[in-house]
Amino acid sequence: MKRLLNDGYDAVEELLDGYVKAHGDVVKLADNERVVVRTTLSPQPKVGIIFGGGSGHEPLFLGYVGEGVADAAVIGNVNTSPDPIACYDAVTAVDQGKGCLYLYGNYQGDVLNFDMGAEMAADDGITVETVLITDDVYSAKDRADRRGVAGDVIVLMAACAVANTGADLATVKAAAEKANDNTYSMGVALSSSTLPVTGKPIFDIGPDDMEVGMGIHGEPGIERKKLEPADAVMDEILGIVLPDMNLQSGERVAVMINGLGGLPLMDQYICYRRVHDVLTEKGVTIAKSMVGNYATSMDMIGMGVTLVRLDDELEAWLNAPFDAPYLKQG
Amino acid sequence: MKRLLNDGYDAVEELLDGYVKAHGDVVKLADNERVVVRTTLSPQPKVGIIFGGGSGHEPLFLGYVGEGVADAAVIGNVNTSPDPIACYDAVTAVDQGKGCLYLYGNYQGDVLNFDMGAEMAADDGITVETVLITDDVYSAKDRADRRGVAGDVIVLMAACAVANTGADLATVKAAAEKANDNTYSMGVALSSSTLPVTGKPIFDIGPDDMEVGMGIHGEPGIERKKLEPADAVMDEILGIVLPDMNLQSGERVAVMINGLGGLPLMDQYICYRRVHDVLTEKGVTIAKSMVGNYATSMDMIGMGVTLVRLDDELEAWLNAPFDAPYLKQG
Repeated sequence: MKRLLNDGYDAVEELLDGYVKAHGDVVKLADNERVVVRTTLSPQPKVGIIFGGGSGHEPLFLGYVGEGVADAAVIGNVNTSPDPIACYDAVTAVDQGKGCLYLYGNYQGDVLNFDMGAEMAADDGITVETVLITDDVYSAKDRADRRGVAGDVIVLMAACAVANTGADLATVKAAAEKANDNTYSMGVALSSSTLPVTGKPIFDIGPDDMEVGMGIHGEPGIERKKLEPADAVMDEILGIVLPDMNLQSGERVAVMINGLGGLPLMDQYICYRRVHDVLTEKGVTIAKSMVGNYATSMDMIGMGVTLVRLDDELEAWLNAPFDAPYLKQG
Repeated sequence: MKRLLNDGYDAVEELLDGYVKAHGDVVKLADNERVVVRTTLSPQPKVGIIFGGGSGHEPLFLGYVGEGVADAAVIGNVNTSPDPIACYDAVTAVDQGKGCLYLYGNYQGDVLNFDMGAEMAADDGITVETVLITDDVYSAKDRADRRGVAGDVIVLMAACAVANTGADLATVKAAAEKANDNTYSMGVALSSSTLPVTGKPIFDIGPDDMEVGMGIHGEPGIERKKLEPADAVMDEILGIVLPDMNLQSGERVAVMINGLGGLPLMDQYICYRRVHDVLTEKGVTIAKSMVGNYATSMDMIGMGVTLVRLDDELEAWLNAPFDAPYLKQG
């Protein structure tokens, strides 16, 4: 598919330059130009929340830097981990003496580089803890091995809500872990994204085909099959996610429909409708709904369903006030 | 391109059903199911703001119904005017005794049907005024003949900011007219949108081609040409828009980069960057920036630039507090 870029090798730098020019009242680049930070940190010292990963998922991660949300985003090349120095520089840019929490999706390259950043910060006497986000149900049987997808945003919200109370690092980390443990996602892709450097798709897919369970970078899913109506696709996703989370009648959930970039809002709301109706029929209460492009794969046509099992505490965290360009509420 | 729908004939009804289920705390359907209204109207009576047009431009129009924003959205079929009864029913649903203002893009079918709605309301003794939005620079030489595109959102913001003060209908209408008179847009399309009923594009365009000046429904533009780098496309657009608005050094503007649905945020910020740099170089101050999918054509790959010439009054209107699902600020 077509993109509107200059030299693809410059795309990430130009994105970041454009982003801080558009939102200069909220964010700026740190001395390290792959680190987006709030223009002014919280007046009350708090645990620094550092969010990050490869670019190509906008508005993830940089769109969630703002008041009461992430303090910094560390940005890698497209579908590529940020480098360790950037991970470290984000810590020195936002630490207020209470330590920092790294939040990112569970991908090998990210783990290696963020861990190195945390070690470098430790040499400076700054404590950095990590919560890996692991919400992609289909990517592995065990929670700890799963990849992170749109659940990144859910876990971020929980961590930030608690960090904003002035809580200590262990408490903030525990909140993020609780949110992650209760978040389940699964998606479907109808097309590949188009890479800026090559101008080509990452993979080929037939004109009538879809892939159920595909990852946000194009990682293989369950099966390649003929494209079905939206309701059938939602039923297939829920048929896997609901048993995995063992959701029972009487429970409460948050529902996120996450567009991967190229899927119209019309389609996303039609998908939401089916998820709403199936859950309601099952006796599950939807206490919060989020629909839109929260974590994309650039122009990929596709979407994911994210369900969050709620208790009063987690529900309150997800309803906290946030004010970043791509996350405003309360 | 691929969509994720059920029967295409049901797409608009399913969209509306999904939308009010997802955002039931903010909106509901009126007795007329093509009218989306606020769940509770303003406690202080105000001029009713009614926004509308064909569907397929989401989040336009329904995404802007909310507290301090539109009181109702009237929704037609895809790329088709809402019917006159719906236009009328929106008035009876939201009028608080101060009259209503219709705001919509200048398209013949919309004008006919909204005018009929206003006549029916007049028979009930309710005054309805209209401001046609006419921001698409390339669509006609004279302002009054131009089509409305993303400027719809700018004009809505101005009208709502003034309506929220409790101003009378004439004052609110004058504010909308002032915003419209100062708003200039032009776009480029790299692909057609895909119609839900047919599953087919509206028009064909070559794999390396773009159309400069294309309308939001696929109306023909200036010329079909080879796709160029983002900066060159922005320069071409600004080369037409800036002389048309006769923008001078020392002036202040708001800039909106509006994605048409299929263009990644990465590309939109790269486009924003060039517009920012060209205006800054010219001595123009950007006092407000908006980047994202404000008025789409479903999955169309493309974007538009909207510039708003500001004075203190108009700038204050655009910075007023708004709280709709797709317009939150302040």
